[in-house]
Amino acid sequence: MPELRKDPIHGGWVIISTERSRRPSDFTPEERKTAGGFCPLCEGNEDRTPPEVLAFRENGMAGNSPGWSLRVVPNKFPALRIEGELNREGEGIYDRMNGIGAHEVVIETPSHSETLTTMSIKAVENVLWSYRDRIIDLRRDHRLRYVMVFKNFGISAGASLEHSHSQIIALPIVPTKVREEIEGAKNYFSYKDRCVFCDILRQELQERKRVIHENEGFVSLAPFASRFPFETWIVPKAHQSSFELTESSFFSLAAEALSDTLRRMKEILDDPPYNYILHTSSSPEKDRDHYHWHFEIMPKLTKVAGFEWGTGFYINPTPPEEAAEYLREAK
Amino acid sequence: MPELRKDPIHGGWVIISTERSRRPSDFTPEERKTAGGFCPLCEGNEDRTPPEVLAFRENGMAGNSPGWSLRVVPNKFPALRIEGELNREGEGIYDRMNGIGAHEVVIETPSHSETLTTMSIKAVENVLWSYRDRIIDLRRDHRLRYVMVFKNFGISAGASLEHSHSQIIALPIVPTKVREEIEGAKNYFSYKDRCVFCDILRQELQERKRVIHENEGFVSLAPFASRFPFETWIVPKAHQSSFELTESSFFSLAAEALSDTLRRMKEILDDPPYNYILHTSSSPEKDRDHYHWHFEIMPKLTKVAGFEWGTGFYINPTPPEEAAEYLREAK
Repeated sequence: MPELRKDPIHGGWVIISTERSRRPSDFTPEERKTAGGFCPLCEGNEDRTPPEVLAFRENGMAGNSPGWSLRVVPNKFPALRIEGELNREGEGIYDRMNGIGAHEVVIETPSHSETLTTMSIKAVENVLWSYRDRIIDLRRDHRLRYVMVFKNFGISAGASLEHSHSQIIALPIVPTKVREEIEGAKNYFSYKDRCVFCDILRQELQERKRVIHENEGFVSLAPFASRFPFETWIVPKAHQSSFELTESSFFSLAAEALSDTLRRMKEILDDPPYNYILHTSSSPEKDRDHYHWHFEIMPKLTKVAGFEWGTGFYINPTPPEEAAEYLREAK
Repeated sequence: MPELRKDPIHGGWVIISTERSRRPSDFTPEERKTAGGFCPLCEGNEDRTPPEVLAFRENGMAGNSPGWSLRVVPNKFPALRIEGELNREGEGIYDRMNGIGAHEVVIETPSHSETLTTMSIKAVENVLWSYRDRIIDLRRDHRLRYVMVFKNFGISAGASLEHSHSQIIALPIVPTKVREEIEGAKNYFSYKDRCVFCDILRQELQERKRVIHENEGFVSLAPFASRFPFETWIVPKAHQSSFELTESSFFSLAAEALSDTLRRMKEILDDPPYNYILHTSSSPEKDRDHYHWHFEIMPKLTKVAGFEWGTGFYINPTPPEEAAEYLREAK
């Protein structure tokens, strides 16, 4: 059973993923490579993944067999397990609980060669719909406090499979950084009676120097305090705390914004590895006024990593105004 | 002039390092490699670095010339500049200040082939003495609030030069994670009237399952909530908030603990890239009772990075009890 452990000093939690336990020899450079050859995510190999929890396919077609456009399956090597009780307990001065949660894989396309930048906007929209459906379903489990949706693209961004996919992890705690971001937005609201993200959009759309792309519903921008070169956020223009409560008519606009932004990065940065994370409310009711969902996209271009992990202190060699200009001029 | 920018949501600061400004083409895989060939840190090439701010050499020998055992020089491409005023100011809803600070390089040895694991314990002790001297000197500058000492070893841990070196960055703000750690320790002290690190040491030395090495003054241990496989902390047994106030007689013991721990990692993990960070108080007077300096060493073994950066949520595939057992049995 994986375990959740709390740092006794700053209170952050980590998953000790005992079921994927690794010995020293598993970390040699050879082992760090992605597994080539057979792909369990390709169409036709449905029996090589756990049974799907969601799939988009033509009406009447059998589940767990070919003919789908998108599948969501439990991760075969999950960081957390859905079965069991949390059993929160102390161990002397330490706190732990069982690693209860969900870990799912969104297989974004049946084709091994497609990616979010080659897929149609309609297909990207389906990926977003699957995020919504899974968030709504997972939020029904009262043990789970946060559903995190993210994507690793490229080996050096942590993708262990080449086939285009995203991941969903539902956690029994709200991660520190998510809590800090929501609390920061709440403090701003207490002080100004305005949403900080709405204020950011207002200033950015006026100044235009960090705006990359805009459509009717969304703005892509390089944030003022970008931690990483070419970091980009996609923010809905209308205030909404929770991704899953976004109006249906906005999903195609979100897909257009995501697809356009990733294509610009591909063009300018030579198909870079990247991570994106969906930032959404942990509690739609409580966070309604002060929080504002968005995507954060981080191309993985620099290697100065451990220092930033350890300190939370980032050195960014590319001013966001310059990054935005390069991305704006792409295509 | 580099710039410090504050995130308007969670309040973290980043350095926008305009003087190292990078265009998209600078991030292509080729450019990410370390520069081979000529080494500006080697003995004999003293004129290829800015003039030294500290050096250990035989009495009477001229500065900035051969014959040294250790040199500290300003970074030739500094993330921050020592000259100027902070000029804190707003830009609409955003906050910024000039990137005032120091960025120095500790050249740990005159020899290109030596590393902390091959150097004598006496030579490692000198590295620690140089950290102390620079911290004391930099703390005299009233504009600077925190002196951060860290080391990147190996290309994939962010080292851009092969020659064994550490870095010192003195900042006009206290980084978020440093503040959180100190505040966490303060909260623990308010509640229990005990230092959380002293409590950790007491429990670890009793249970022994996460202890890796111990000498008269220091304990190496795998922390209960390890974020990374084989993460190791070196903690002084005696309570002391600030590294630079450590009694002189303890420096050789700290060097022994650091050298021993790094050698065990080298043995077990095949000379892994790693980062270490010196965690020390931002204000020795204020933090005297509740904070406790220590080193945190993080071998860079996994690539799942962007997700953790973005969320503060770590998945660690190696339980610290197992990591400690491997490291304990090394040599």
